[in-house]
Amino acid sequence: MTFTDRDKKHLWHPLTQHKLQKDLPVIVKAKEAVLLDDQGNEYIDGIASWYTAMYGHCNPEIVDAVSKQLGTLDQIVFSGFTHPPAIELSESLMAILPKNQQKLFFSDNGSTSVDVAIKMALQYYYNQGVKRTRIIALEDGFHGDTFGAMSVSDLSVYNGPFEEFFIDVARIPVPSETNINEVEQQFDSLLAQGNVAAFIYEPLVQGAAGMKMYRADLLDRILGIAKKHGVLTIADEVMTGFGKTGTFFASDQIPHKPDIMCLAKSLTAGIASMAITTCTQEVYMAFYDDEITKGFFHGHTYSANPTACAAAQKSIALLQSESFQEHIQRIYKQHLQFAEKMKLHKKVKNVRCLGVIFGMELTNTLDRYGEKRNQLFQFFMKRGVFLRPLGNTIYILPPFVISDEQLDKIYHCIEEVLEIV
Amino acid sequence: MTFTDRDKKHLWHPLTQHKLQKDLPVIVKAKEAVLLDDQGNEYIDGIASWYTAMYGHCNPEIVDAVSKQLGTLDQIVFSGFTHPPAIELSESLMAILPKNQQKLFFSDNGSTSVDVAIKMALQYYYNQGVKRTRIIALEDGFHGDTFGAMSVSDLSVYNGPFEEFFIDVARIPVPSETNINEVEQQFDSLLAQGNVAAFIYEPLVQGAAGMKMYRADLLDRILGIAKKHGVLTIADEVMTGFGKTGTFFASDQIPHKPDIMCLAKSLTAGIASMAITTCTQEVYMAFYDDEITKGFFHGHTYSANPTACAAAQKSIALLQSESFQEHIQRIYKQHLQFAEKMKLHKKVKNVRCLGVIFGMELTNTLDRYGEKRNQLFQFFMKRGVFLRPLGNTIYILPPFVISDEQLDKIYHCIEEVLEIV
Repeated sequence: MTFTDRDKKHLWHPLTQHKLQKDLPVIVKAKEAVLLDDQGNEYIDGIASWYTAMYGHCNPEIVDAVSKQLGTLDQIVFSGFTHPPAIELSESLMAILPKNQQKLFFSDNGSTSVDVAIKMALQYYYNQGVKRTRIIALEDGFHGDTFGAMSVSDLSVYNGPFEEFFIDVARIPVPSETNINEVEQQFDSLLAQGNVAAFIYEPLVQGAAGMKMYRADLLDRILGIAKKHGVLTIADEVMTGFGKTGTFFASDQIPHKPDIMCLAKSLTAGIASMAITTCTQEVYMAFYDDEITKGFFHGHTYSANPTACAAAQKSIALLQSESFQEHIQRIYKQHLQFAEKMKLHKKVKNVRCLGVIFGMELTNTLDRYGEKRNQLFQFFMKRGVFLRPLGNTIYILPPFVISDEQLDKIYHCIEEVLEIV
Repeated sequence: MTFTDRDKKHLWHPLTQHKLQKDLPVIVKAKEAVLLDDQGNEYIDGIASWYTAMYGHCNPEIVDAVSKQLGTLDQIVFSGFTHPPAIELSESLMAILPKNQQKLFFSDNGSTSVDVAIKMALQYYYNQGVKRTRIIALEDGFHGDTFGAMSVSDLSVYNGPFEEFFIDVARIPVPSETNINEVEQQFDSLLAQGNVAAFIYEPLVQGAAGMKMYRADLLDRILGIAKKHGVLTIADEVMTGFGKTGTFFASDQIPHKPDIMCLAKSLTAGIASMAITTCTQEVYMAFYDDEITKGFFHGHTYSANPTACAAAQKSIALLQSESFQEHIQRIYKQHLQFAEKMKLHKKVKNVRCLGVIFGMELTNTLDRYGEKRNQLFQFFMKRGVFLRPLGNTIYILPPFVISDEQLDKIYHCIEEVLEIV
């Protein structure tokens, strides 16, 4: 039996309607920016396997660090114990985080890092005897799939059957040049009600919405209003974090810093699932008390798994290195050139670029998971490029190590695909 | 600066009130059943680092399999692709799961596996146009820390500040010889209301409640009532799974099989965080449709991470081996002998044993996270044994590879501690 047939017997894939799903390619190997399937076909990984393998697949320096850790200390309960990989990672991370971030709380993926952030914000007020139970989020935001994370997300394909089970969330539009005054007003009057605990946002780029970008200065005005009302701000940097927007974090480009940040995905470079929710000393101190129950009684078994910490620490060292910073600049410049060209194309509605993220909206409308969109996916795959269009948005978020030739091949395929849409 | 001081600067530990927390031991190495700290002290890991490292820390066969995988394929999007480690793991798992389990859905930890199970159950009815939105859970149950998992849990220290944000859950007492008729009646009339989607339970052993055990035949009567009403049953085997109760799964000891199962913790032997929610073909078929949106649109980035799959597959191979099955029997026999002795002790309220799980309740009452409980913890640590009492329950859940001498040392320490409580 082929791998494909064996796959179908018992595996239920995420975000997949199996009745309509074509046979899945079987990936057997990955190296740097390239994926290899069981038929010997190669694909350029144009989205770094969901923005994780930014340092290249199976990066030898990271694999080395992880292998060493695996033979030394695999796992230890992080409640009641500590260990060097977590301590060293905390120091590496502090060196690149916005200065107001002081404490790190571990969990296992982006969704749980958001559930943690929401719980932190709610309990922050609860511990002070203040009743603030509402969260504000951005329209078209996406923050994950657990119940807390779903509640603050606004993409209905993910939430449909579950909406009546959500926590109390109000939404405001993403600020733009045309709506900023209204959004400010709406946000201000929502916060004036005094029942809002936190505002959660994907800074600068809304990933799952289709790499939609918005201006730092406009977001900053919104954050200023949150600060004025004493509402905690939560930057979900699960997608944007670790160099993808050109700076270490998207929040680096915005004057008002968040109170809480969510980190995952490329935190561990594709090696293992791990997430961190960071926060200010002020947030932390609301839990620091003689009363035991004012502590934060959240705890996943694999919190701060030593192997995952080792992967994260080595990744951050690479990110800080001159050569990776050069990669980021190189990719950004190429993206800008390609964007200039694409802007003129009549089938292109708009183009946006930030750091290594390139997004382009087509004039045609395509369903997020529809037949047309799948044709684009297949078109790219047949030409040896893995891209994952989101509705009518084609985007690239390549590993930092992608070569100029590989990037050119992706650009060329995108130009080709415009002829058939 | 020492590791201890460095730890305090930026790390926020789970389930910890830092103001009351003593300096944390720094674990630098682990091998088989032993942990080593930075002062050269050794500790027997009496709870297999929260029931994960059951095959021994840094098990060379597992580390080998994982290291090979790390150099081959680290990560690939599991929506739109598949890969051999996931396929091979699915076959290994199918060989030991209850026969009615047919499909495997990946996530990243026990909490998310429960959120997935709840979402599956709710959407199972939603997709059929049936309004069933309530979940029934057991009193004293614990299922995790995300909002969905918290909702079905009943340990108030974890839930306090968040209770008003929960989905609709009703609770029934754990069935016992004395209450079974009432519980059956209560459960039956709750289900007769027709709005219940699922019943979730930790089969045979409630872990976080203090390794509380209850009878298979009584649970089976409850499950029979759920089947009669067409209510889905969810076995949370995150703690009990993979040999700990003497059989591959606790559900193997109960005639009525669950519709959905949650697996995590020792699934990956302490190497990486991963979870799987399994289900019957019937559950799966409620999502299999020409309509895209009837699919299950849940998906974590690291779903079925190849490295974690490699760890899981090797672990299951070890679990099935004669030598590990012998380990389980050996530990069970030793536990039984020790239990006989402890039953006679005047400070012991009751003793319970199942597979490699040993639990013992003291006549004294201790707070779950109180000062007295911490003294017990310290007492054991000073003698080179890591145990983690839950209130007035002392329990052991050792790695399968623990030696008889190491087990005896743990037993001896427990006898000693009875002199001071």
